[in-house]
Amino acid sequence: MSVVDDMRLFMEPRSVAIIGVSRNTSDDGSFNTLEALLDFGYPGQIYPIKPGSDEILGLRAYPSVTEAPGGIDLAVISVPRQAVLPTVRECVEKGIRAMIVVTQGFGDADAEGKALQAEMVQVARGAGARIVGPNTMGVINAFSHFSSAFVSLSKPERKLPTGFIGQSGFATYLGLMTRPLGIPWIGAKGIDVGNACDIDQADALEYLTGDSETRVIALHLEGVKDGRRFIDVASRASRLKPVLALKVGTTDCGARAVASHTGSMVGQDQVYDAVLRQAGIIRVGDVEELEDLAKAFAVLPPLPGPRVAVLTPVGGLGVMAADACGQHGLELAPLSSATMERLRSLFPSWMSVGNPVDVWPAAFSVPYHQVFHQVGQIVLEDPNVDAAMSVVYTAQAGYTFFEPLAELEDLAARYHKPMTCFVYGPRCPEAAAGLEESGRIATYPSPVRAIRALGALWKYQVYRQRLAASDQFSAVSSQGSASNLFLTRP
Amino acid sequence: MSVVDDMRLFMEPRSVAIIGVSRNTSDDGSFNTLEALLDFGYPGQIYPIKPGSDEILGLRAYPSVTEAPGGIDLAVISVPRQAVLPTVRECVEKGIRAMIVVTQGFGDADAEGKALQAEMVQVARGAGARIVGPNTMGVINAFSHFSSAFVSLSKPERKLPTGFIGQSGFATYLGLMTRPLGIPWIGAKGIDVGNACDIDQADALEYLTGDSETRVIALHLEGVKDGRRFIDVASRASRLKPVLALKVGTTDCGARAVASHTGSMVGQDQVYDAVLRQAGIIRVGDVEELEDLAKAFAVLPPLPGPRVAVLTPVGGLGVMAADACGQHGLELAPLSSATMERLRSLFPSWMSVGNPVDVWPAAFSVPYHQVFHQVGQIVLEDPNVDAAMSVVYTAQAGYTFFEPLAELEDLAARYHKPMTCFVYGPRCPEAAAGLEESGRIATYPSPVRAIRALGALWKYQVYRQRLAASDQFSAVSSQGSASNLFLTRP
Repeated sequence: MSVVDDMRLFMEPRSVAIIGVSRNTSDDGSFNTLEALLDFGYPGQIYPIKPGSDEILGLRAYPSVTEAPGGIDLAVISVPRQAVLPTVRECVEKGIRAMIVVTQGFGDADAEGKALQAEMVQVARGAGARIVGPNTMGVINAFSHFSSAFVSLSKPERKLPTGFIGQSGFATYLGLMTRPLGIPWIGAKGIDVGNACDIDQADALEYLTGDSETRVIALHLEGVKDGRRFIDVASRASRLKPVLALKVGTTDCGARAVASHTGSMVGQDQVYDAVLRQAGIIRVGDVEELEDLAKAFAVLPPLPGPRVAVLTPVGGLGVMAADACGQHGLELAPLSSATMERLRSLFPSWMSVGNPVDVWPAAFSVPYHQVFHQVGQIVLEDPNVDAAMSVVYTAQAGYTFFEPLAELEDLAARYHKPMTCFVYGPRCPEAAAGLEESGRIATYPSPVRAIRALGALWKYQVYRQRLAASDQFSAVSSQGSASNLFLTRP
Repeated sequence: MSVVDDMRLFMEPRSVAIIGVSRNTSDDGSFNTLEALLDFGYPGQIYPIKPGSDEILGLRAYPSVTEAPGGIDLAVISVPRQAVLPTVRECVEKGIRAMIVVTQGFGDADAEGKALQAEMVQVARGAGARIVGPNTMGVINAFSHFSSAFVSLSKPERKLPTGFIGQSGFATYLGLMTRPLGIPWIGAKGIDVGNACDIDQADALEYLTGDSETRVIALHLEGVKDGRRFIDVASRASRLKPVLALKVGTTDCGARAVASHTGSMVGQDQVYDAVLRQAGIIRVGDVEELEDLAKAFAVLPPLPGPRVAVLTPVGGLGVMAADACGQHGLELAPLSSATMERLRSLFPSWMSVGNPVDVWPAAFSVPYHQVFHQVGQIVLEDPNVDAAMSVVYTAQAGYTFFEPLAELEDLAARYHKPMTCFVYGPRCPEAAAGLEESGRIATYPSPVRAIRALGALWKYQVYRQRLAASDQFSAVSSQGSASNLFLTRP
């Protein structure tokens, strides 16, 4: 079986044994994987395994996995450290080919733990079985309504086109967590490889690369074991869909922290930087940037050029957006003379109209909503404009003067150019969520972040263009390979 | 009169004339300065000025400022551009010594506007009067319940020790706006100098420097006209309280945008960098960092050393915090052997205990709240620990297992060490606001930002220590001056 088939057992199991399920149930900290799975709406067959229990949460329970009837696709193992190896043996005996080992205290711990981990891998490999973990929350898949997380997650209301691969419990948390602004975008599918004793980032990446439900891949890397394979898989992935990476352990402090977290070797940061760039992966600086860019790629159309128009009711924020364009490889779109002419007719005669467009002075006679819509149409019709960033101020309840929400949605639907918004003020969470419900606009809590997201779209577009050029060249010269291209950042 | 006395007329006027007040009133976009001022709870005398009106919003109105009775401290002028200069003359005639000119279209616009601005300054100076603006929202002061903003702001529920000086309408918006996370911290007092035709950033800074209600000063700079005076005032300010600066127009795109916004010359960015550093000002990269650091300085005690302890239920987030320590001039606190001994007693024997402290493995037998509190006490009692950053995960409603909120407040109150939190998950806005209500903890939406805030406290502490050393040296050698110190970033 291929890695992709193996991964399907983890991500879309038809039946699952929950081994070491708790009998505690509560809304506050039962950490009951079974309860969480039921809450998540999993439709497959579940076998709770717990010695001495006949029934847990309305389901028939079994004293051991070998006594459960029928074939089982996946086992989720949450038993104390000393019981893990015997349980893995039982699973193998039962013919189970996929195991998630949640328990900590292996490669992440002492010599005994490291030895146990090595033996666990040997047992599994001997039987052609695969392991995710140990020291993991496992996987989440909002499409199949399956999650091995031991914290309750709400039922997935929307299926997002983003896949997340991480090396920490927060990977699965991110599955459906709510961030301060907008709707949560990372991780309709999430895989926490934990100590990565068997299934590693490259395996997970291979699965998400071929997965039609995933359009953007976000990676959280502490370390990578088989660098060559990772580069190979990542290079293939980035040809098909954007791949983002948050590589941690970049400082001495961080590297030491990684060693005691998942036992990974972080490697030299410059090496990672070069390797990721070569593989066409967009490296990000922190978890906010990871989420920001994942959202942009999930929601927005491709950016055909670097020329951005900025629309704002506040001149000072337009300046910050302009600075951000310079910092993130973009340009302020040079509006055509026809566009300038049309804009001037809306503004006071003394005003020097330009980009950023300070919309406010046009709103003395016509309501802001209406004039914003007019300005937006004029600007987005300009072939010199590739994308737009809009500033949206939300005042207190009822006071919606500065919120051209329906107008923004209309502009996004009509012009098919990437549109981001900086949304702020008292009701920013509601307004941002409303804009994102349209499925066409990405919102951000600062002008810099709203522009940086567009910069990432452009960076990926440049990468794709270079790849295409290189492929053409290869076809002609029959030598050279795209995966060896050392691409510099645009 | 001194600049400080002048500024008091703007910030704490006993009586104010609103010239060009609108008769429109509504909850959505009346832009009625008078209505906004009444909403803000201003207790002083107000004279609405509007030809042809006897009464506006229950207040006696006058056709011109000269016909209003009594002395008037301040005039807020929002009349069309051509009417501004005659209005300024009338105010001067009436003996008014402070004017806020809201109207746009002067130094920010065409040649006519620039000439009008110059004449306006001449008229005011000839009479010993001062002008804030033009092209400004003016000022806000939550302490005196006075604001010249034409958008309605909620009544100030808390008086914050932060002062903001900006060059854009968003300065006053920031007065009481709600950000996505936590409670709003910037701008109990805010001054938007607009085109800065008369009162400029240095004047506003001088006022806030001597103001006992202001403990942190945040600057938004497009350009500075009198660089020498600015450095002088800023150097004195930063001796007494932290001064933060967001300098914009740092790229070519941004510089051009500034020129058409307030007509300022942005200057060379490296020069600003050196000048700000020399004046002991902490430069920030974007508006989020400005707010983050203002909050840290407003809420937290000084940071006596660079050694940070990180407490987290998720190892991967501890690694990110560790990286951030390395990036922001801090260290992971080397826990004492006594502390390590005490911690080991709480954790499984296989675990290698260290800093960051992954608290979760200690919570198998004891509830997380309780064990978090114990870990927190042990760590904060360690003299090797100068500050703590805690990760707080909030799950869905009712599920508060990972939220040791009361415990964090208790730790902050007992140990008087700076404490920041990274708060995330579905209910992060409520949890963050709750923690900040204590007035002792600052919350942030990423581990990096929670650490960066501590880094700024340390940067300021190092600056103060160097100043003290230099002053001692000066006292001995009777030469050299602290304001000439070229301080490198720690």
